[in-house]
Amino acid sequence: MVLTVHHLHMSQSERVPWLCEELGIDYELKLYDRSPVMAPPEYKALHAQGTAPVIQDGDLTLAESGAILEYIAHRHGGARLFLPPSHPAYAQFLYWWHFGNATLMPTTARVVAVRAGGGDDPIAKVMEDRFARQLKLLDERLKTNEWLAGEEFTAADVMIVFPLTTWRHWSGMSWAGYDGILGYLQRIGKREAYRRAMAKADPGMELLLGPDPPKSDRTKDLVHKKSS
Amino acid sequence: MVLTVHHLHMSQSERVPWLCEELGIDYELKLYDRSPVMAPPEYKALHAQGTAPVIQDGDLTLAESGAILEYIAHRHGGARLFLPPSHPAYAQFLYWWHFGNATLMPTTARVVAVRAGGGDDPIAKVMEDRFARQLKLLDERLKTNEWLAGEEFTAADVMIVFPLTTWRHWSGMSWAGYDGILGYLQRIGKREAYRRAMAKADPGMELLLGPDPPKSDRTKDLVHKKSS
Repeated sequence: MVLTVHHLHMSQSERVPWLCEELGIDYELKLYDRSPVMAPPEYKALHAQGTAPVIQDGDLTLAESGAILEYIAHRHGGARLFLPPSHPAYAQFLYWWHFGNATLMPTTARVVAVRAGGGDDPIAKVMEDRFARQLKLLDERLKTNEWLAGEEFTAADVMIVFPLTTWRHWSGMSWAGYDGILGYLQRIGKREAYRRAMAKADPGMELLLGPDPPKSDRTKDLVHKKSS
Repeated sequence: MVLTVHHLHMSQSERVPWLCEELGIDYELKLYDRSPVMAPPEYKALHAQGTAPVIQDGDLTLAESGAILEYIAHRHGGARLFLPPSHPAYAQFLYWWHFGNATLMPTTARVVAVRAGGGDDPIAKVMEDRFARQLKLLDERLKTNEWLAGEEFTAADVMIVFPLTTWRHWSGMSWAGYDGILGYLQRIGKREAYRRAMAKADPGMELLLGPDPPKSDRTKDLVHKKSS
């Protein structure tokens, strides 16, 4: 066993054990509690970026979800879950692979922040418009395709599920009315590798595969309401 | 000529003509003015995501910087500017390739927003801390390496330059004291492909390769100050 996966509870590092389970790769999982909201000092000390996920592979310490998934799949998983340039769905795969972390996650974070702040400035409207466009685009894609890239489950799916599920413990988002997203989350929940990874990474945590957000919104611990 | 690059002035779509110039790929460049701050309706109509960049390649319309650069390099550029899994600097390349759009850009956007809002909540401190960590990490990398992946100029460099240069017309960031970043921007500015692309994409625009931000901050047009 060469690969160590450092998982911060209820964070986007859940993607890494999930990818390893999908690929059948052996890994050692180290778990870290939040203290109380953000990563604890020993997690921040792992990599200068200071955020989850982080892995170690021999002498290498690597951060950044996209880099880690791509590295593990190509160095240890025979490049499975990444479509090659010759594949007919290559462009679609690339679009959704990058969309998760470079577009949907940042927009969701901005929308959470502007809603917490009262949402009364011009930036709030821009962000809400972008978020609505992105959710509609994602929802329509998932109404007519089993997985993001089309017929094949890929790393793009592993990337996008966190903001649609676990992050809702913080973001409080509801997917009511987004039938494409909801059907997709049911398909995700049936994957044995996903269930196996989540049971190891966050035992006992509700998986949030349905439309409703959790009853308590943990973001309130961190963000002061600026207006009522 | 099969490739059409839709460039929104003073935006991250500058990466696409730059990549094409580095690869020596023929492309048709279509230019769009902002109206007055955001993308005009005809740009938003190109792709449901509604943001720059967008390209067309035959029947394909593709958005998302990461997807576009990876697609063009692999389908039209012989995979140049992307290091293969066998390369000794593969992990470093992947880290910086994803860091630009999934970490540095979103953090910069959050910091711009919290500063405009007065920066008085707990999220502001978290974001400022993350931003300082990311700039330090980037600065140290560039003090000891010519390019982000090491000795070879790669797509990771094409990805990261926009938030370090053109975005400063909006973000107003200064790199005073970040000697690694400043040396790097001088090296970028000497690349003929970069200068050729910028002259075509944003003729007459100041390139902001030095430490100081521009005198007027265009973000002020969009973000209301919440406190003085």
